[in-house]
Amino acid sequence: MKLTEELRKAMRITVDYTNMTEKYLGDKGISQKTLDAQRRLAKAAHTYVSRNRGKDELFMGWTELPYNQAEVVADILTTAKHIRRNFDTFVVLGIGGSALGPTMAFNALCHLHYNDLPKSKRKGPKFYVEDNVDPVRMKELLDVIDVTRTCFNVISKSGATSETMAQYLIISDLLKKAGVNIRDNVIFTTDASRGNLVKISKELGGVKSYVLGDGVGGRFSELSPVGLLPAAVLGIDIKALLKGAAYMDKLCKPSDMYRNPALMCATLQYIAMQSGKNIGVLMPYSDNLRYVSDWYAQLWAESLGKNVHLDGRPCNIGQTPVKALGVTDQHSQVQLYTEGPYDKVVTFLSIENYKEKTPIPHGCENIPDVAFLGGHTMEELIQAENKATAYALTKAGRLNYTIRLPELNAFTLGELLFLFELQTAYAGAMFDIDTFNQPGVEAGKKATFALLGKPGYELQRSDLDNAAPDEKYII
Amino acid sequence: MKLTEELRKAMRITVDYTNMTEKYLGDKGISQKTLDAQRRLAKAAHTYVSRNRGKDELFMGWTELPYNQAEVVADILTTAKHIRRNFDTFVVLGIGGSALGPTMAFNALCHLHYNDLPKSKRKGPKFYVEDNVDPVRMKELLDVIDVTRTCFNVISKSGATSETMAQYLIISDLLKKAGVNIRDNVIFTTDASRGNLVKISKELGGVKSYVLGDGVGGRFSELSPVGLLPAAVLGIDIKALLKGAAYMDKLCKPSDMYRNPALMCATLQYIAMQSGKNIGVLMPYSDNLRYVSDWYAQLWAESLGKNVHLDGRPCNIGQTPVKALGVTDQHSQVQLYTEGPYDKVVTFLSIENYKEKTPIPHGCENIPDVAFLGGHTMEELIQAENKATAYALTKAGRLNYTIRLPELNAFTLGELLFLFELQTAYAGAMFDIDTFNQPGVEAGKKATFALLGKPGYELQRSDLDNAAPDEKYII
Repeated sequence: MKLTEELRKAMRITVDYTNMTEKYLGDKGISQKTLDAQRRLAKAAHTYVSRNRGKDELFMGWTELPYNQAEVVADILTTAKHIRRNFDTFVVLGIGGSALGPTMAFNALCHLHYNDLPKSKRKGPKFYVEDNVDPVRMKELLDVIDVTRTCFNVISKSGATSETMAQYLIISDLLKKAGVNIRDNVIFTTDASRGNLVKISKELGGVKSYVLGDGVGGRFSELSPVGLLPAAVLGIDIKALLKGAAYMDKLCKPSDMYRNPALMCATLQYIAMQSGKNIGVLMPYSDNLRYVSDWYAQLWAESLGKNVHLDGRPCNIGQTPVKALGVTDQHSQVQLYTEGPYDKVVTFLSIENYKEKTPIPHGCENIPDVAFLGGHTMEELIQAENKATAYALTKAGRLNYTIRLPELNAFTLGELLFLFELQTAYAGAMFDIDTFNQPGVEAGKKATFALLGKPGYELQRSDLDNAAPDEKYII
Repeated sequence: MKLTEELRKAMRITVDYTNMTEKYLGDKGISQKTLDAQRRLAKAAHTYVSRNRGKDELFMGWTELPYNQAEVVADILTTAKHIRRNFDTFVVLGIGGSALGPTMAFNALCHLHYNDLPKSKRKGPKFYVEDNVDPVRMKELLDVIDVTRTCFNVISKSGATSETMAQYLIISDLLKKAGVNIRDNVIFTTDASRGNLVKISKELGGVKSYVLGDGVGGRFSELSPVGLLPAAVLGIDIKALLKGAAYMDKLCKPSDMYRNPALMCATLQYIAMQSGKNIGVLMPYSDNLRYVSDWYAQLWAESLGKNVHLDGRPCNIGQTPVKALGVTDQHSQVQLYTEGPYDKVVTFLSIENYKEKTPIPHGCENIPDVAFLGGHTMEELIQAENKATAYALTKAGRLNYTIRLPELNAFTLGELLFLFELQTAYAGAMFDIDTFNQPGVEAGKKATFALLGKPGYELQRSDLDNAAPDEKYII
C-alpha cells in the first residue's frame, strides 16, 4: 500500500470535543479558562513523553514500534503465509495485552462471522484467542479444533504466566500424544534471551520465536509481534497498521494541546478526573470496534490505576473504563448516563463511511412507526442514533466527545491505537505516576501460588487459610 | 426434572459478604452498626415489593413469571421442537432486554463454541442474536445464514423499536424475494393486542406470536417468552429455569435482611452507594457467566439510574455497572481495583463445581514456574485465582462479596436471575424511585426520528442542526 500525503490526510482521525465545552454544555462543561490553565501541564507531559520515548528502561520502547520493525515484519509475513498454507486453525494462548490486542484487530478488520465462513471465503485459518483458564472453555475449545492441524501462538514475556503456561502444558501433552513434534505446531512470542519459553524452545530443538522487546509492556504490545503475527495470519495489512500509527505519532508532535489530539484527550480526561469524573465510558458505534473498548480498558486502567506518585507520595488515582456499544447500549446504559450521577465522560467512536451501507427496504407502509425507516440505510440509522445520543447527553449536561474515523481499515486502526497509547502516556505524566508498571497484581499472583502449593509460598498459605469465609456472613 | 427439597437445597445459591464487613476489611468495611441501622429501610423495601408484586400497572408482573406460565411453557416446548426439526438457524431480532436475556442463557447453558459444533452435536439450530443496526454486522450475518432455512424471532413489545423493525424490513423483504411465505419463518414476541407486530401479524394471515405481558418490562423479561422461546429452541430446560427462580423467590420471603439474600445484596449496595461507591463491578469466574454481566448491567443501570424520586424531588441516582471476567481481567482491571480510588464494590460470581475439571498434565519439570501447575486441574487453578483475588482486594481494603453457585445449570441460573431482579426491586424501593421506567432514553429516540425525517419531529430537527460540531473544537 503506497500512501500519498493526500491519502493519509483523507484517512486522518479527528477528535471533536465540542460537547465537553462550557459553550455547548453550559455550567457542566469545561470553560476555556480551565482548559487554558492546563496548557502548561500538558506541555510538560508532552516534553516528558518526547524526551523519554524509546527508552527501554522506562518501558517506553513501544513508541518506536512503527519505525524499527522492517525486518521482523518481513519475517512475520513469511511465517504467516506458511501458517495459512499448513494449518486449519490458529490459536493464541495469552492473557492481558497478549490477548486483547489480537482480539481487537481480528474483530475490527475481519468478517464479523469469520469463523462461520467457509474456508474459501476466509483469508486465513479459523481463529481463537484463549485468555482464560476456565476449565469448560478449554475443554470446549478442544471439542472444535484438531490440535494436529492447529498452530498455537504462545505469548508470554517471562514464560511464567500461570494461565498461559497451564494451557501450554495441556496442548503440548496433546500434541505429543498425537505423535506431532511440538516444535512444528507452536510459535513463541517472548523475551529475547531470558524467560522460560527460551529454555523450552532450546529443549525442543529450537521453536520459531518472536521477540517481545524489553521496553514494551503487555498493554503497549499490539504493534509488536504480539499483535502483528496474529494479524498477518488473518490477512490484515500490518504495514498499513504501522503506517497509521506513525501518522498519528506525527499528528501528535506539537507540544500545544490545541494542535495535538492525544494531548487534548489526555487533558480533557485529566480535567474531568480532577473534578470527580471517575468513570470513562468508551462507546464505539460499530460492532467492529467493540473490542477496542476491551483493549483500551486494560491500557487505561492498568496504566493509571496507581497508589503512589513517582516520588513516593501515596495517592489513589485512576478512572474506571466502561465498555459500551452503540446503538445497543442505548437500550441498556444510556438511561443511567442521562439521568444518573454526573460522574463520567463518554467517548464515542464514530465512523464516517462504513464498509457496508445495508439499505432498509420500504415496507409496512400503513405503519408510520416502521414505514419512515424504509429507503434509508442502516448506515444512516446508526449514524443518526450516534448523533442523537451525543445530542441527548449534551442536552442533559453530560461530558462527551467523539473520535471520528473516516473509515475503518488497518491504517485508521493503527492511528486509533497510537492515539490511545499516547493519550495514556501523557495522562500518566500529568498525574506524575509510573504509567508502565503494575505492582497491584502481585498480591493476587502470590496468593494463587500459595493456594496451589508452589514451593516458597507456605507462609502466605496460612494467612489465606485464616481469611476463610465467615459463616456468620453467608446467607 | 423432579426436584426434591434436598436437591433444591444442594443447588442453593449463597451470598457471602464476609469481605464487606469492618471485621475483615478494617475501617474500609461496613460496621455492624451501619448494617443494623439499615434494617428498617430494608424491611420497608421488602414490604413495598411484597405488597406490589404481580401488579401489572406498576410493571411488577415479572414477579409471577415463575408461577403463571404452565400453558405457555407447554406451547413453547412444542414450537421449539418444530423449529429444531425445520430450521438450520434461529435468529433473535431484538435489542435491550430482548437480546441480553437470550444471549446470557445461550452462553451460560450451551457449549461455548456451540455454532462451531457439527449439527449432530448440537441440540438445536445455529443461534444468533442481532441487537444492533451496524450495517456491516447485518450484511455479514446474511453472508453466513440462509434466510429460507432460518427462523427469525422478532421481539418488540410495541413493534415500534426502530432497530428491530429495520431488521424486520430487511429480512421480510429477503424472504419475500426468495418466495418464502414470511409467516412460515417468523415468530413474534410482542404485546397481547396492541402494537405494530399485532397489525403485521394480521396482515400476514396470523403469525405465530407470544405475548410479552403488560407488567413485564424488557429488562425483567428473561423468564417470559422473550427468553423462554430461544432457550427452549437451544434445548435448555426452561422448566428448571423457572423452578430455580421460584426457589430463589422462596429464599427471599423473609423481611429480615439477614435471612434474605437479595435484600442483603440490595442493602450492601445501598450502603456502598450512599458512601460514594458509584461503580459496581460484576466479575464472574466463568466464561459461561460472562454475559450475565451484560444482562445485569442493563437491569441495574436502567432501573436505578434516575433523576427523580417517586414524589418528584430531583436526584441523580445510580451506580455504573462494570463487566469484568475472572481470571482474564486480573490482567487488565485488577491493578486499578487494588490501587485506584475507593469507588467500587466488586461482586464475584463463583462456581463450586464446574462441569469440566480439565486436568493440567505434568511437564516442564525443570522449570519451577511451570512445573507446579502439573497435576492440578484448571478448575483448581481458576478457583485458586478467584480466592486469591478476593483475598488481595480485601487486603487492599476493597469492598467485595461473592455469590456462590454450587454448579451452573438451568435451575441455578434461574435462581441467580431472580436474585438480581429482586435485589434491583428492593434497591429501587430503598432509593424511592421508579425502578421500572426509562424516561431518559426518550430524548435520543426523538432526535433519531428527527434526523431520519419521521413526520412530526421537524422542530427538533432544526435544534439538532444548530448543535452541529464546532470546527473550533476539532483536532
